[in-house]
Amino acid sequence: MIRTIGVDPGSRYTGFGIVEGDGSHLKHIHHGTVKIASSRPLPERLEIIFEQLKDSIGAYGPQFMAIEEVFFAKNVKSALTLGQARGVAILAGVGSGLSIHEYSALRIKQSVAGYGRAAKEQVAGMVQRLLRIDKELEPDAADALAVAVCHISTWSSNLRWKVPQRQ
Amino acid sequence: MIRTIGVDPGSRYTGFGIVEGDGSHLKHIHHGTVKIASSRPLPERLEIIFEQLKDSIGAYGPQFMAIEEVFFAKNVKSALTLGQARGVAILAGVGSGLSIHEYSALRIKQSVAGYGRAAKEQVAGMVQRLLRIDKELEPDAADALAVAVCHISTWSSNLRWKVPQRQ
Repeated sequence: MIRTIGVDPGSRYTGFGIVEGDGSHLKHIHHGTVKIASSRPLPERLEIIFEQLKDSIGAYGPQFMAIEEVFFAKNVKSALTLGQARGVAILAGVGSGLSIHEYSALRIKQSVAGYGRAAKEQVAGMVQRLLRIDKELEPDAADALAVAVCHISTWSSNLRWKVPQRQ
Repeated sequence: MIRTIGVDPGSRYTGFGIVEGDGSHLKHIHHGTVKIASSRPLPERLEIIFEQLKDSIGAYGPQFMAIEEVFFAKNVKSALTLGQARGVAILAGVGSGLSIHEYSALRIKQSVAGYGRAAKEQVAGMVQRLLRIDKELEPDAADALAVAVCHISTWSSNLRWKVPQRQ
């Protein structure tokens, strides 16, 4: 059983979701969205993201952080903004001793919805079903839970593959 | 007299420079470059930048952090990479209680070299002269010292303007 915090960072909305499991069994532990008014100055926003993620890591004790790999953005400005939020999110993980893992959007969709071109809503719906969550999920929290699920299934299948080599 | 740490963040080279002064008087306190092998994984790199800046802040006690405003980058990928380093650099400042100030490249060049279209080497040369540094500066450390000088002169001239209103 491993426990993972998935993170979907952004300068206004940072989703996070904690999932425990071993591939076939998945258990939803907690999720939420850090929401920050765009009127707040940048340094304060980055600090809020960092502190709130650190608090959740402290409260729920995951061993892993999973985060989506990013290769593109609308433009350079939004890439810079996203990069800043992403940097402090990763720092919150590594500073708490977590092992950090990145997954492509394709890989995340495949592992949650079964195919890589699934729509955002389909992924959110599957996350809800897989984790038996009754209430509708906010988009950023759904994305965060999806990358956590992706990490757990990837990690677990790696372990399964490794078992024969150890015997 | 105010003491400022200027920072020029990057995922491989992060320059920093600490300057004390009140506009007309400038005193070089310390400078350096955090150099990180590109083979290191991203989370580790971000942690090194964060920790080394926090250490320098702890050791030299600046009240301000000055950093260049960024609006463009070569492409989206380099904007993401720069954003991540920039995010953790700002976090190191705000987490240590510093007041963070951003300045455009134009403003920095104007305040150090006298005009906004000065070449990078001219700015570095002027920084060296203004701060009476004998040895040639590494480019990232020179840029970091330049933004610190810019902050001190901006801050000091703001204070001078405010004096009559207080009497």
